[in-house]
Amino acid sequence: MITELIAVGTEILLGNIVNTNSAYLAEKCAELGLTVYYQTVVGDNEERMKQTIKAAFDRSDVVILTGGLGPTKDDLTKEMTAEVMGLPLVEDIHSRERIEKYMKEYEKNNPQRRITANNYKQALVPEGAIVLDNHNGTAPGLIVEKNGKTAVLLPGPPNELKPMFEEEVFPYFRKKQPEIIYSQMVKICGIGESQVAEDIQDLIEKQENPTIAPYAKTGEVHLRVTAKAENEKECKKLIKPVVRELKSRFGKNIFATDEKKTLEEAVVDMLKAQGLTLALAESCTGGAIAARIVNVPGVSEVFGHGFVTYSNRAKRKLLGVKKSTLKLEGAVSAKCAKEMAKGGCAAAKADICLSVTGLAGPDGGTKETPVGTVFMGCCYNDKTIVREYHFTGNRTKIRQQTCAHGLALLRDCIMEGIQKKD
Amino acid sequence: MITELIAVGTEILLGNIVNTNSAYLAEKCAELGLTVYYQTVVGDNEERMKQTIKAAFDRSDVVILTGGLGPTKDDLTKEMTAEVMGLPLVEDIHSRERIEKYMKEYEKNNPQRRITANNYKQALVPEGAIVLDNHNGTAPGLIVEKNGKTAVLLPGPPNELKPMFEEEVFPYFRKKQPEIIYSQMVKICGIGESQVAEDIQDLIEKQENPTIAPYAKTGEVHLRVTAKAENEKECKKLIKPVVRELKSRFGKNIFATDEKKTLEEAVVDMLKAQGLTLALAESCTGGAIAARIVNVPGVSEVFGHGFVTYSNRAKRKLLGVKKSTLKLEGAVSAKCAKEMAKGGCAAAKADICLSVTGLAGPDGGTKETPVGTVFMGCCYNDKTIVREYHFTGNRTKIRQQTCAHGLALLRDCIMEGIQKKD
Repeated sequence: MITELIAVGTEILLGNIVNTNSAYLAEKCAELGLTVYYQTVVGDNEERMKQTIKAAFDRSDVVILTGGLGPTKDDLTKEMTAEVMGLPLVEDIHSRERIEKYMKEYEKNNPQRRITANNYKQALVPEGAIVLDNHNGTAPGLIVEKNGKTAVLLPGPPNELKPMFEEEVFPYFRKKQPEIIYSQMVKICGIGESQVAEDIQDLIEKQENPTIAPYAKTGEVHLRVTAKAENEKECKKLIKPVVRELKSRFGKNIFATDEKKTLEEAVVDMLKAQGLTLALAESCTGGAIAARIVNVPGVSEVFGHGFVTYSNRAKRKLLGVKKSTLKLEGAVSAKCAKEMAKGGCAAAKADICLSVTGLAGPDGGTKETPVGTVFMGCCYNDKTIVREYHFTGNRTKIRQQTCAHGLALLRDCIMEGIQKKD
Repeated sequence: MITELIAVGTEILLGNIVNTNSAYLAEKCAELGLTVYYQTVVGDNEERMKQTIKAAFDRSDVVILTGGLGPTKDDLTKEMTAEVMGLPLVEDIHSRERIEKYMKEYEKNNPQRRITANNYKQALVPEGAIVLDNHNGTAPGLIVEKNGKTAVLLPGPPNELKPMFEEEVFPYFRKKQPEIIYSQMVKICGIGESQVAEDIQDLIEKQENPTIAPYAKTGEVHLRVTAKAENEKECKKLIKPVVRELKSRFGKNIFATDEKKTLEEAVVDMLKAQGLTLALAESCTGGAIAARIVNVPGVSEVFGHGFVTYSNRAKRKLLGVKKSTLKLEGAVSAKCAKEMAKGGCAAAKADICLSVTGLAGPDGGTKETPVGTVFMGCCYNDKTIVREYHFTGNRTKIRQQTCAHGLALLRDCIMEGIQKKD
C-alpha cells in the first residue's frame, strides 16, 4: 500500500521543533511493508491543509497525519480530513467520557486552574471512524476508512503518538496485509558503517525475500532483516539463514537481536550476568559514558563509581596516574589510559574499569597526536588492555563515537574475560 | 517570498535518518523573513522528484532542495531541477578543478582506493547557476534563478550544508530582501516553557514589528526578536526596547543574547571571568552535567574533577556523605545533596561544586519521594544551598531537565556569590 506521511504544525514548519515523528513513522511503515513515497509538513492553515490532504489521497492509499488534534481553534487536522473525505463529525460518547474524567482529575490536582470547554471538541470524530484511546493525553487518535482509502490521525507529542501507534495502528495494518511481514533486528557495534556496508554488499545485491536494510547510528549499525510470507512461522524460517549468515560475518560485534535493546543495556546485562561491578574513568568524554550506562534503569546493582578526571591533577589524585607518565607521555597516551583504568578499578574497588583519554578538539592537535586521537583502556582480572582510536568530525561527533566504541570495548573485555575463565 | 523546503533521499523517506536539515533551514528562513508554507521529503526517484519540484515552483518563489547532489546515478536533484526549470547542464571548470584536487588528495591518503570518474558528474551545473564551493565535501551547492523563481541546491550532510548556508546562501537572501531583517536572540533558563509563554502573552498578542518567536528547548526557552526596517540600525532601534522589556521581565534568567552561546558556555564564561574552579558530584544524572560542561572547548582551565556517585558507597567514599544521612534521610534528600556538594568541593579542592541526587525512575518512587524528585546542592564560599525539584516525563526527560536546571542553579550561585563579594 502506498503511504504518505503528513506532519501538521507551524512549530515544525518554522523549525521550532525537529520532525522526529516522521522518521519514527517511516521506520515503522517500512517494518509493516507500507511503501512511503512522500512526507510533507504543512502549517495550521485550512486551505493549505486541505490541498495537502487532497494531493496525498490522489497519489496514496494510506495517509498518516500527525499533530493538530488538540482543543484549540488552530487544531484543524480532524476537521480538514473529514471535509476532504466527505464525512460529517459526530460526538464519540466514549471519548467525551474519557475527556470529562481527565478534566476532573486535572482540576482536582490544579485547583486554581480550569480546563475550558473547548476540550470537548476533541470528542468529535468523523462518522464511522475507529477511535484510538490516548493513554498519555486527551486527544484520541483516529482511523478513518472510505472508498479504499485510509486516513490515520495521531496526536503530535511523541510520547502520545508512539504508544498509540504500537498498540493500535501497528496491529491494524499488520492484519490488513495479505501477507505477514516480520522482521528481525541485528545490532552491530565496534565496526564502521562503511565496513558493514561493504561486508554485506553481496547479500544486499542478491536480496529478494528477506531484505536487509541498514540503519546507521553513531558507532552502531542496525540491520533490519524483513521477510514476507503467509504466516510468522514461514517468515522466521526465511529470516533464520540470513541472520545466521550475519552472525557468522559479524560474530561478537553483534550486541543485540532484540529491537529495543540498547548498547548500554547489552553491556549492563553482561555485567549483571557475570556479577561484575563497573567503574568508569573518563577524561575527554567528561562523564558521557557514565551517563549512557545510567540510562539503564536498575544499573545501581553493577555501577557505583565514575571518575571524571578532566585535569591532570584529577587523574593523579583520583586515579593514581603517575606524574612521570603525564610528563613524559602526556595525558593522551596509551600509558595514561592504562594507569587510569587500573587506578579506577582500585579506587572504586570494582571488578572492571574502562578508561578514556583523548583529544576531542577543536584545538590542541599536533602531528603526533592529531585531534580525534583517543586511547581507551580496560582493566579486568588484573590485566589491562589499551586500544588506540582515530575518530573524525567535530568535538561532539568525536565524543559520541568515543562513547559508542568505549561501550563496545567494554563488551569485548567482558567476553574475553568469560572465555578465559572457562 | 514564499519558500518551500524539499529534502531528497530515500534514507529520510524510510526513516533511516532524521530530517534535521529541514528544521535548521526552516529556522534560518524565519530569520531571513522567508515564509515557509510546506516542507516535503521525496525519494531518489525521477518522476516523483520532478512532480515535487514542479508543484513547489507552482506555489512558491524559492525552493530549497537538500541532498541528492552526490556522484552516484541515484543522485538526481540537480538533473531534475534543471529539467523542470528548462536549463541545460554545463561543466563548471572551477568545480572540476576542485574535484580533481580533492580526488588526488584522497588517493594519496588512501593508496589502496580509487575514486571513480563519476565524481566529475558533480562539476555539471545548470547553465547560469551560481556555484557555491563546498569546503567540507566534493558536491558544490547551487543557486539557480529563472523567471523570478529561485532554486537553491545544497548537499545533504549537515556539516556540508550548514557552513555553505551561513557563508553563501544567507547573505544572498539578505541582499535580496527589500527590507533588512535583523533578529536578536534572548535565551532563558530556569523557567518553564509555559511560564515564559504566559509572561510574554501580552507582548505577543500586540506584536507587529518586531515579532517575538519562542523556541522551547529542554530546560531552556529561546526568544527570537525579529525586526524589519530599512537598515540594520533601524532594526536595532526597534528591537532594543523589546529586549529591554524582556530583560526586565526575565532578569537574571536570561543567560545569553548571543545566538550561538549555549547554557554550558555561559556558565563556563562566568567561572572563567571569576577565576573559579568547578567540581561536579552527580548521582541520577550519572555524569551528564559534566559531559555538558566538557562540551565547551578549553574548559580544563576551570573544570578538573567530576564525581559520578551512583551508589551510596561512592557517595560516602568519594564525597564523605555521612552513613547516618543515607540511613535516616536517604540518598534522595536535601541533606545528602548538601553533603555531596560540600564533599565535592573538598575532594576536588574546587571553589564551587554542584551536586545532584534524584529519582529518575521508572521504579523506586514512593508517596514521599515520587519519581521525578531531584535535590540539587551548590557549595560556594563555604555556604551550601539546596533546591528541590519535581520533574515529569520518562527517565531520559527527567535527567535532561535535571541537567539544564542544574546548570541554571550553578549560574544563580555564581551570580549570588558575585553580589556578596561586591
